[in-house]
Amino acid sequence: MCKEIYTDIEAHKTAYLVRLKRLLTQPSISSQGVGLGETADLLTGMLRSLGFKVEQVPIDGPPVIVAQMEGKRPERLLFYNHYDVQPVDPLEEWTTPPFEPTVREGKLYARGAADNKGAIAARLGAIESYLRVHGSLPVGLTWIIEGEEEIGSPHLHQFVESQRELLEGAIGCVWEAGGKNARDRYEIALGCKGMLYLELRVKGAARDLHSAMAATVVNPAWRLLWALNSIKGPDGAIRIPGFYDDVRPPTDAQRQALAEWEYPEEEVRALLGIDAFLDGLTGMALKERLIFAPTCNIDGFHAGYAGPGSKTVLPARAYAKVDFRLVPDQRPERVVEQLREHLDRAGFDDVEIVWWNGEAPAAGDPDHPFVKVAVRTAEVVYGHRPTVLPMMAGTGPVHLLCGQFGVPIVTAGIGYADSRGHAPNENIRLEDFYEGVRYIATLLAYLDRSDPERL
Amino acid sequence: MCKEIYTDIEAHKTAYLVRLKRLLTQPSISSQGVGLGETADLLTGMLRSLGFKVEQVPIDGPPVIVAQMEGKRPERLLFYNHYDVQPVDPLEEWTTPPFEPTVREGKLYARGAADNKGAIAARLGAIESYLRVHGSLPVGLTWIIEGEEEIGSPHLHQFVESQRELLEGAIGCVWEAGGKNARDRYEIALGCKGMLYLELRVKGAARDLHSAMAATVVNPAWRLLWALNSIKGPDGAIRIPGFYDDVRPPTDAQRQALAEWEYPEEEVRALLGIDAFLDGLTGMALKERLIFAPTCNIDGFHAGYAGPGSKTVLPARAYAKVDFRLVPDQRPERVVEQLREHLDRAGFDDVEIVWWNGEAPAAGDPDHPFVKVAVRTAEVVYGHRPTVLPMMAGTGPVHLLCGQFGVPIVTAGIGYADSRGHAPNENIRLEDFYEGVRYIATLLAYLDRSDPERL
Repeated sequence: MCKEIYTDIEAHKTAYLVRLKRLLTQPSISSQGVGLGETADLLTGMLRSLGFKVEQVPIDGPPVIVAQMEGKRPERLLFYNHYDVQPVDPLEEWTTPPFEPTVREGKLYARGAADNKGAIAARLGAIESYLRVHGSLPVGLTWIIEGEEEIGSPHLHQFVESQRELLEGAIGCVWEAGGKNARDRYEIALGCKGMLYLELRVKGAARDLHSAMAATVVNPAWRLLWALNSIKGPDGAIRIPGFYDDVRPPTDAQRQALAEWEYPEEEVRALLGIDAFLDGLTGMALKERLIFAPTCNIDGFHAGYAGPGSKTVLPARAYAKVDFRLVPDQRPERVVEQLREHLDRAGFDDVEIVWWNGEAPAAGDPDHPFVKVAVRTAEVVYGHRPTVLPMMAGTGPVHLLCGQFGVPIVTAGIGYADSRGHAPNENIRLEDFYEGVRYIATLLAYLDRSDPERL
Repeated sequence: MCKEIYTDIEAHKTAYLVRLKRLLTQPSISSQGVGLGETADLLTGMLRSLGFKVEQVPIDGPPVIVAQMEGKRPERLLFYNHYDVQPVDPLEEWTTPPFEPTVREGKLYARGAADNKGAIAARLGAIESYLRVHGSLPVGLTWIIEGEEEIGSPHLHQFVESQRELLEGAIGCVWEAGGKNARDRYEIALGCKGMLYLELRVKGAARDLHSAMAATVVNPAWRLLWALNSIKGPDGAIRIPGFYDDVRPPTDAQRQALAEWEYPEEEVRALLGIDAFLDGLTGMALKERLIFAPTCNIDGFHAGYAGPGSKTVLPARAYAKVDFRLVPDQRPERVVEQLREHLDRAGFDDVEIVWWNGEAPAAGDPDHPFVKVAVRTAEVVYGHRPTVLPMMAGTGPVHLLCGQFGVPIVTAGIGYADSRGHAPNENIRLEDFYEGVRYIATLLAYLDRSDPERL
């Protein structure tokens, strides 16, 4: 049904790749404040040249780009992407410079190629070809591209507060992220775990002391260690009273999707360099833990002497960074309250809590009509039935932008198992990029059906 | 009885201070391998010029200096000191450079002034004046000066193995360290706690991972934390089976000395910047914990991200440095065995133990005749009864050099409460230095009595 569009895409392959390379040449590192305004302007120009009405909505971080275009029908679709990328270090491990996009053996290497400028460029190409063939989009499109995703979208709530009407009532959102799994099977995710990221701090004496004083002076490293042990013990269960109260079990449809979701255990173990998963998990139990279990992870623990050999010191300070991944219907603000109450009751009122960020979880419904369209589209374009993940183990602002408004999401990424997002030599396969262009164009075509009830 | 000697000391004050300054001008940082050979040679020259027979005994670290001189009587006394000092950082906190000894307001500032080149120079001065007045020493003297005390004397056992006859049968040892307490009362210590210094290491995946993987991949920081919690819980008791089995309760004389030992709680709390001691300890209970209780201290705990803000990472490695301070009759090699057994039994065979160093404990007998002579001498020289500590909370090679041969020790330092050993602006009061010269000379004179049975 999309023959004409595919022909147009084929004819413009080079132009679409050139546009992607232009995007990749522009650094945009949110954690370091590098090139964000320039990237927002570059994208704004590209979107306008396709006919979008574009606005840069100011927030306390880099602006949120909102591009809008009317469609033939009144329904409105959302696209979500981010224009920021991760830092490039360690730079010495890159074969070619991270902001000089380079093609080698059918792969395009550059920071952001997979996460997620490749997906942005694929969408731009799909829309350009679609408009050239059909003259207008099937439904209205609101494309939101933020610049702080890689640092946890700390100011995106400001955008949502002032622009709720852009989000409410959309038929669905084509989210960023993802692609093909370690067996090259296309994967669609429908949501994200939430997160609470905290720092715990304990103070001892005014300065580091000779460790002979440990007999009679408090050691903040021990205090912090015991506090963390009171939060999670060796059995892995989180001991904060009430923590699991808000956990909603997955629906039958979600569980069914999880059972069908392909998780290549052997390939993942090899990639991570581990002999076995935690607690010897495998099969459905492994998938359930990964996708539907909340976690409490130590991201960092630092106290005292870290140099070579021995130094006998009683540290004056101890710090831990801790993240909780949350599942529906847990809320970060509720968990931090429960944690404070727990620590106080357990005798750890000397443990200070610093809140770094929090995002609510959002799981998707595999039976939602919008999801079914995305799955059917993938089957046509990729030539196999995609594997569907009701919720990712990772976190993104899905609840903030879509979940809280009842808008379903489907990821549409162009990465593959060896894309090395966030790592040196990030790359995509060019064929995946062009397939991604066709996927978005085909999805638009499917939405051009006469029966709006379907969505 | 020492009038002639005191007059001689008074006449040579400047010369003794000049010699001390020369020692302090020579850096000798064992942990950084700076200036150790030069310092050994400098001291060898000084000792020879007083008439000592001096040898530099080679070990796998800087040489041990052994200086010997015959006495009028066949009995033999030991002196113990070390010629190495602590590193000087943070350099910017020094008012004058650490190796440019400077007198300000009656105080001499330099690295090593208190710990312990000042004590070495005081002993040199005392011997010089004693010999000038009396022609020979009352008893034979073997002076051992090592160059690795500040890094835990890791090779001193090699010296002991080859030179046991230097140590066996001595009537006593004048140890390094110490001086006056926070109320300017002279203090004599008779031993040291032992130590076991370990590093515990846990490995996880091949590299740091996205923290979403924490649901299904082991976190070495949690493993290490739980392992440490299994070693010591919030009540402070050490949970390693058998750990307390070898603890010998203090004798009545040691307990009596401890009761009389002056510990200026208020001044110490102010100095450390703490409101209260551990568990609200005070009085005799505080002193018993500090001096007679073994400890397990976290010197350092490091895993994962330590930078600003949040980074969601599942660390690949976790490290902790831990020291145990041991009391008679605990032994470091026994404790490390017990720890390995405990960790294996508790399910932590993934925790690797790296042994950095170990020293056995040694407590002294306050009723020993040699101790009584040192106390009586101090009473005469300092004009008040000294406070006596059966064992220090810190560690030194007392057991290795003296304890195992039944040789009693007494410390004879020239520091005071604000001497800042190991810290910037280390200093001594000049008057304490000259008092220290008189103390050693007087002690030699007391040993010149006719009744060898007394010792």
